[in-house]
Amino acid sequence: MPIQWNNLDTVSAYTQLRKTDTLVNLTEDLNAERVKTWSISAGGGLQFYYGASMVSPNDISRLRELADQQQLIDKFKLLLSGEAVNTSENRSVLHHLTRTDDGSSSAAFYREQNDALRRFSESVHSGRILGSTGKKFDTVVQIGIGGSDLGPRALHLALKGAYPAKMRALFVSNVDPDAAAEVISLINPETALFILVSKSGTTQETLANRALIMNRLTHQTRQRGVSGYNPGDHLAAVTSETSPLAESKDVRESFFIDDSIGGRYSSTSAVGGAVLSLAYGHGVFTELLAGARQADQKALGRDPLSNAALMDALIGVFNRNVMGLPCTAVLPYSQALARFPAHLQQLDMESNGKSVNRGGEALAYPTGPIVFGEPGTNGQHSFYQLLHQGTDAVPLQFVGFRESQRGEDTETEGSTSQAKLNANLAAQIIAFAKGKHSSDANKNFKGMRPSTLLAGQRLDARALGALLAHFENKVMFQGFCWNINSFDQEGVQLGKLLARSVLSGQSGDEALGAYADILGL
Amino acid sequence: MPIQWNNLDTVSAYTQLRKTDTLVNLTEDLNAERVKTWSISAGGGLQFYYGASMVSPNDISRLRELADQQQLIDKFKLLLSGEAVNTSENRSVLHHLTRTDDGSSSAAFYREQNDALRRFSESVHSGRILGSTGKKFDTVVQIGIGGSDLGPRALHLALKGAYPAKMRALFVSNVDPDAAAEVISLINPETALFILVSKSGTTQETLANRALIMNRLTHQTRQRGVSGYNPGDHLAAVTSETSPLAESKDVRESFFIDDSIGGRYSSTSAVGGAVLSLAYGHGVFTELLAGARQADQKALGRDPLSNAALMDALIGVFNRNVMGLPCTAVLPYSQALARFPAHLQQLDMESNGKSVNRGGEALAYPTGPIVFGEPGTNGQHSFYQLLHQGTDAVPLQFVGFRESQRGEDTETEGSTSQAKLNANLAAQIIAFAKGKHSSDANKNFKGMRPSTLLAGQRLDARALGALLAHFENKVMFQGFCWNINSFDQEGVQLGKLLARSVLSGQSGDEALGAYADILGL
Repeated sequence: MPIQWNNLDTVSAYTQLRKTDTLVNLTEDLNAERVKTWSISAGGGLQFYYGASMVSPNDISRLRELADQQQLIDKFKLLLSGEAVNTSENRSVLHHLTRTDDGSSSAAFYREQNDALRRFSESVHSGRILGSTGKKFDTVVQIGIGGSDLGPRALHLALKGAYPAKMRALFVSNVDPDAAAEVISLINPETALFILVSKSGTTQETLANRALIMNRLTHQTRQRGVSGYNPGDHLAAVTSETSPLAESKDVRESFFIDDSIGGRYSSTSAVGGAVLSLAYGHGVFTELLAGARQADQKALGRDPLSNAALMDALIGVFNRNVMGLPCTAVLPYSQALARFPAHLQQLDMESNGKSVNRGGEALAYPTGPIVFGEPGTNGQHSFYQLLHQGTDAVPLQFVGFRESQRGEDTETEGSTSQAKLNANLAAQIIAFAKGKHSSDANKNFKGMRPSTLLAGQRLDARALGALLAHFENKVMFQGFCWNINSFDQEGVQLGKLLARSVLSGQSGDEALGAYADILGL
Repeated sequence: MPIQWNNLDTVSAYTQLRKTDTLVNLTEDLNAERVKTWSISAGGGLQFYYGASMVSPNDISRLRELADQQQLIDKFKLLLSGEAVNTSENRSVLHHLTRTDDGSSSAAFYREQNDALRRFSESVHSGRILGSTGKKFDTVVQIGIGGSDLGPRALHLALKGAYPAKMRALFVSNVDPDAAAEVISLINPETALFILVSKSGTTQETLANRALIMNRLTHQTRQRGVSGYNPGDHLAAVTSETSPLAESKDVRESFFIDDSIGGRYSSTSAVGGAVLSLAYGHGVFTELLAGARQADQKALGRDPLSNAALMDALIGVFNRNVMGLPCTAVLPYSQALARFPAHLQQLDMESNGKSVNRGGEALAYPTGPIVFGEPGTNGQHSFYQLLHQGTDAVPLQFVGFRESQRGEDTETEGSTSQAKLNANLAAQIIAFAKGKHSSDANKNFKGMRPSTLLAGQRLDARALGALLAHFENKVMFQGFCWNINSFDQEGVQLGKLLARSVLSGQSGDEALGAYADILGL
């Protein structure tokens, strides 16, 4: 059957779902059987548990029909085939090729870049590549913003407790000059290697940070009388082959990405690969790719009952379009995943925060949710109050691991810290689902707050790769459900244009001029 | 007139507001005049600009009536008088007294604690107080969670670029053992001073982290053959006078808070004061208190037109209850404020995420919004896509400063990084408010996304104190509008209970037992 691109509200399974009037009663229906059997392998040793979601067996049948009627798997395969599913920019969407191992010619470009990364990182670690004054590099600083920052930064932090660092890694993203100044205060220019990441080679923030940092370091080394310091020898680039950066003589090495990989999907390309290979070794990055590949393979299954990303996507559509809930919270019970919600926030909100379909027509239903989150148990002492007793329900995506990364733990009052962490996680899922009646309304918990859980043994590179790809694929499937283009981001353009007009002194709009005045411009 | 505690939907000004059918057309109505004159001093050198909100002059008249009818200023004064406005716990709410300078006897307790902090921090800095092996302390580690972590951590980070560090400060909050292990890997036990912060002295995470850290450090120092190391000499506590910690012989010094200050409102008490005084000196903390005091004083004005916190609160109620918008984003254009949204997330969502009124009756209108945010310009390359073009509008709270903290900047393409930062901020406000029509629906920006701006000269301790107090007072006023108790947090109790039952091996509920199994318990 040929691919049909239909809006969600034209699909009969969706109309049926919207008629659902018997909601699951989690307070009664969530039993051990449902918890354990409503579960799907997600790759990388992760298991997706969705028993605490608000879908009934009947709803699941409808969601399976919805997946068929919206041809979600066929659309995924079409994407994998290289079709230009990014319609507005007429581009393929090829980030899955960064982690394939099928030897296909279409992946040759990414394979070459990854090989180049391996050689480069090994040479830096062995000291075959040195700084301009002959010293070994001990620090890598990634300069990039958005997708060139959030994913790589979250992944780097996530692996810190699991692998010994071969190099310290730091990140600069914000154009705020205090951000670069802070990083400059932490490094020795002679042993620092910078990775400048910008696909276009023209990102305002990234170029400004490069200039600021290079100026300062040149000045600093001169002042200290360091002879022979040459900033270009401390700079590598990750960019597209056609960007002005690619031809620059001021970088010692370039690694390439292309227009088929959007920033927020680029963590498994050289955008994430360079800094991760330098920080932990290319072998760790290879493990991460293997985990992502496993998740991708699982995402090809036609039946949501054995495709975790697909089921997660469908449950999300149920929450958003049937239950009418505008937000989703991501709650990893792992301090190492502290910045993972910020990455997912971009991944999801930039991909699916759209109100027109892929043909450019206005949509009559809500699309991508607002995504936020902090690690547990921290969040429990913060915003969980509203999640439990606020006037609006928020669907929750929990993540947890049976073991800590470092294995350094101690018992207090009969249990380890890791056991306390996970006891809290289990407890929260039940508290949200089942609530607890109290005759004192202020102490009453209604329950009926749906959640899912991704659980694994230990957060290593493989599990992390699968976690990353799981959510990438979930977001992709949701975009297909909503019939939107999850791969462009026209919403970021207007602000860029107006900022440029302010800087050129021609704000045009008098209110814009007034704000410029207020801000000292 | 005596104080009346009425639900919002019983108030005539609110009924009137809900009848508003002519929404402000920001695309046309937002001119330079409105931008500049719709502005209120917020203390600490900050100015609150609300021209880009969706309220009309008519709405403002209704909001002023609402403030009168709900007796918002009278209720604030009642709170200040020591009345037990925290009804469910029958407690006063006295955090404002931590920064008063009126010499009142009611503030004597907090003044004494603050004096003790000054003496202690000065003694640590001068070396009169040393570690157990005779070495000077160079690092302070705060162990606390929720309000004992988020506020102090956000404030510490916010001041890092503005003041030289007298001591390095680190934070441990999460019970995840990897969090403590990471911090342990960064310190020298002989020169590290720990501040254990728990009002009750029984917080599970904080006690577990204390045990984990002290065990490890004792072990480490023994292994290294350090003689005379005594962990208690490296430990100070911030707790209540009645807590088990207060009597502990294992701490060298205790500073006190009391039940009249909730965790999320405790940043200006010893909870924030200890770590900030140690990190930057007590003088910097004193400046922060002065800024907060200025904001508090301004919050006493009866007229919202000259009371920024009150106006901010009323506009928030308009967004939530008239416009029906469930979220608020906090967007500081300052990397130093990177964790300030996480603090506000707790402050707001834990205070006002309630669905019963202060008398314990169910409410028929939405209360506290979901709060999230990241610093700009980072967020522009992330979730702003949804904010601009998603199906749901999100009110925005911008924060910006004319100068950077460190003053280390450089020009590229004719402008400094600070100018680029602020040009982007001005541009975003206008892009959100006015949008831009395009015949290509995918490039169309509807605008009509309301925002406010708090702007200052430079983020110093005084501005930061005012910023903190502004939002505390805003949240308080909103709680009064909604007639809820913003000062308890019953919603955190159920999870705690269930976690304890899991750890004791008596999960009771079979689904809870199943999740415990899955998580390796």
